[in-house]
Amino acid sequence: MDEVLADPLSKFIALYNRDYGVPLDLKILPGNEIHHHVPEHANMAWFDYINEKGFFRELPVIPGAQEVMKALQDKYEVYIVSAAMEFRNSMEDKYDWLADHFPFISWTHIIFCGDKIVNTDIMIDDRIKNFTDFEGRKLLFTSPHNELVTNYERVNNWQEVAEKLL
Amino acid sequence: MDEVLADPLSKFIALYNRDYGVPLDLKILPGNEIHHHVPEHANMAWFDYINEKGFFRELPVIPGAQEVMKALQDKYEVYIVSAAMEFRNSMEDKYDWLADHFPFISWTHIIFCGDKIVNTDIMIDDRIKNFTDFEGRKLLFTSPHNELVTNYERVNNWQEVAEKLL
Repeated sequence: MDEVLADPLSKFIALYNRDYGVPLDLKILPGNEIHHHVPEHANMAWFDYINEKGFFRELPVIPGAQEVMKALQDKYEVYIVSAAMEFRNSMEDKYDWLADHFPFISWTHIIFCGDKIVNTDIMIDDRIKNFTDFEGRKLLFTSPHNELVTNYERVNNWQEVAEKLL
Repeated sequence: MDEVLADPLSKFIALYNRDYGVPLDLKILPGNEIHHHVPEHANMAWFDYINEKGFFRELPVIPGAQEVMKALQDKYEVYIVSAAMEFRNSMEDKYDWLADHFPFISWTHIIFCGDKIVNTDIMIDDRIKNFTDFEGRKLLFTSPHNELVTNYERVNNWQEVAEKLL
């Protein structure tokens, strides 16, 4: 979900701006996580933000995600698999957010997990750790933190997902 | 989780007793679900009960589940996979219940889903619908509703799981 369907980075930046003066137009450098760009004493604030009820409830949708996911459903069986289990307070927010923005994905096709041990043919993900034990086709969805990663088939946006899979 | 690690049946019976006079020592006949044993006008109450916050928070643990799951961890990588996604309000309760009773299972090894499309070698489950697309070894954990099912390797309790897998 995060950084593929939903955009938590802009919300992190807004919160870091409010609390620590981090600029609202912060550009995250390739290979970096957001916490590499905040003052040292603010380093762990992301962990508080992300554990707060409501953090995941109002995130923007990544452009094109809804249209392309809907189109993919005509050709594939589409599951949403999120590593939500790390953050107990994220689950209901993520569930409600999906009901708002991806109502065409049934509860039968939503998975909140830790390890993504799913038995699918294709996985679209921004974190290569999720590809480690996955034997299907891996599509690395570009996000600042993975921009320096090579050796994976890459999709820079949902338009490119559509071009490859539709 | 339900009817394998956690016992929702005794709680259903207690609630049906409180609201509709169903006897507390109700025995569910082989092949039946609890709703086959309640007055017709109470037929859908289980759906209200299960959607209530708190329903899954205080369920008894199925005898032997903790000890055998702990022992299985020494030999296998053990995941808990629950079809929690059908009931939004169950997720936090199930998460907290697992933290109380199975603290030795990490968040990385807990999965809340609809379809159980997990890539594992063995699945222990009480619902044969979860075995349909599963290619590994299937162990049907006995619960009243599945007692008439044949054609599956069966475990009647956690002691029998231990005997087969440890």
